Amino acid sequence: MRFDLISLFPDFFSSPLQSGLIGRALKRDIAQVHITNPRDFTTDKHHKVDDEPYGGGVGMVMKVEPIVAALESLPQEPRREVILMTPQGEPMAQPLFWQWSTDVDQLVIICGHYEGVDERILEVATREVSLGDFVLTCGEIPALALMNGVIRLLPGTVAKRDSLHYDSFEAGLLDYPHYTRPAEFRGWPVPEVLRSGNHAAIDQWRRQQQIDRTRERRPDLFERWQQHGWENQDA
Amino acid sequence: MRFDLISLFPDFFSSPLQSGLIGRALKRDIAQVHITNPRDFTTDKHHKVDDEPYGGGVGMVMKVEPIVAALESLPQEPRREVILMTPQGEPMAQPLFWQWSTDVDQLVIICGHYEGVDERILEVATREVSLGDFVLTCGEIPALALMNGVIRLLPGTVAKRDSLHYDSFEAGLLDYPHYTRPAEFRGWPVPEVLRSGNHAAIDQWRRQQQIDRTRERRPDLFERWQQHGWENQDA
Repeated sequence: MRFDLISLFPDFFSSPLQSGLIGRALKRDIAQVHITNPRDFTTDKHHKVDDEPYGGGVGMVMKVEPIVAALESLPQEPRREVILMTPQGEPMAQPLFWQWSTDVDQLVIICGHYEGVDERILEVATREVSLGDFVLTCGEIPALALMNGVIRLLPGTVAKRDSLHYDSFEAGLLDYPHYTRPAEFRGWPVPEVLRSGNHAAIDQWRRQQQIDRTRERRPDLFERWQQHGWENQDA
Repeated sequence: MRFDLISLFPDFFSSPLQSGLIGRALKRDIAQVHITNPRDFTTDKHHKVDDEPYGGGVGMVMKVEPIVAALESLPQEPRREVILMTPQGEPMAQPLFWQWSTDVDQLVIICGHYEGVDERILEVATREVSLGDFVLTCGEIPALALMNGVIRLLPGTVAKRDSLHYDSFEAGLLDYPHYTRPAEFRGWPVPEVLRSGNHAAIDQWRRQQQIDRTRERRPDLFERWQQHGWENQDA
């Protein structure tokens, strides 16, 4: 799977893409990441990538022409999605990661900067995606999250692929609590049931923990799970 | 403001923390970032930071002892928050960023890995925070997002501090569309009103765009804005 990052700060990505599980996946060519800088596609002598907003206001706006030129310089795989990272987009979520990991050959990610990107970028972007209901200085961090979440799901990245189906959100619920050695740490013990060896009891306890935690912490998720999740709950 | 990252992959952060607005803010000492590796606080000869889960299951669990030892090695500022990055936490959101940027002197961020962190870490963490309803391979990316969002709000980072109040979510609504030169690009014009010079009309158009976009794209935000946001809408 091919990722194309359109970014004014290509250096941003150098250490994160060499690190951990994703670094290993890229070394093993499970995915390929290419970075293109819109600044290289400016035609004026100052290499201007931003300008003042029409209608006034504080902050600069990223110009549409260098981004479109950068996009048009890229090779095009058959199934391509062009994503603009913006707080105005649809919230990033696990089902999107699964969809991209199976249905798409190339993800182009446009990283915004400054006050925002000229709205006409939407004539070429196929999707607007938001990392969450907050504002960051740049689209590079959301792009990193998106790539990480998708590459993680590609065959070969995670050794025990079964484990992906036990993730948070996969059954519409939060994950259950995990414990490892020691059995007691500073007076805090591991719950008895997990040391019982009774697998049916362990499964039941974990399931109940998932339900209780989701209800307490995320009533929004819990409601959706109650309405839609029953049929998928053992998927 | 001091940030302490507790991370098994300190190298992950090297290029993102040198890049863009955040890189400049750190160079100017607006915030300080320190990274501590739990692996340096292991006491066995294999420097083991993870182990098998009690109760069985796929994946490894991060051990609690090296993380607590790393935490206890840190200097402690008066107003400190210890955050565990986990999909089980409360969703990251703009009001949290504002709160931390003003009410806290030190943010310790514990970056999880593998299947999760031993639940007993919650005896020392003051808060669990989630980047969103999806799963990543590591807590380093969420930590980067959190730091970026908070450092951005610290006095001195953004030159035109006024602009922060026009961000998405600050008035409970999505942002309006931005445009810059050229007035027409490949047959796509800038909306007439933005070139009219009529500032009252521009303000009204932008406001209406915010409302329309939020209603269409994010009915959840729109409902909250209708219920709670009116009193703050001009804040």
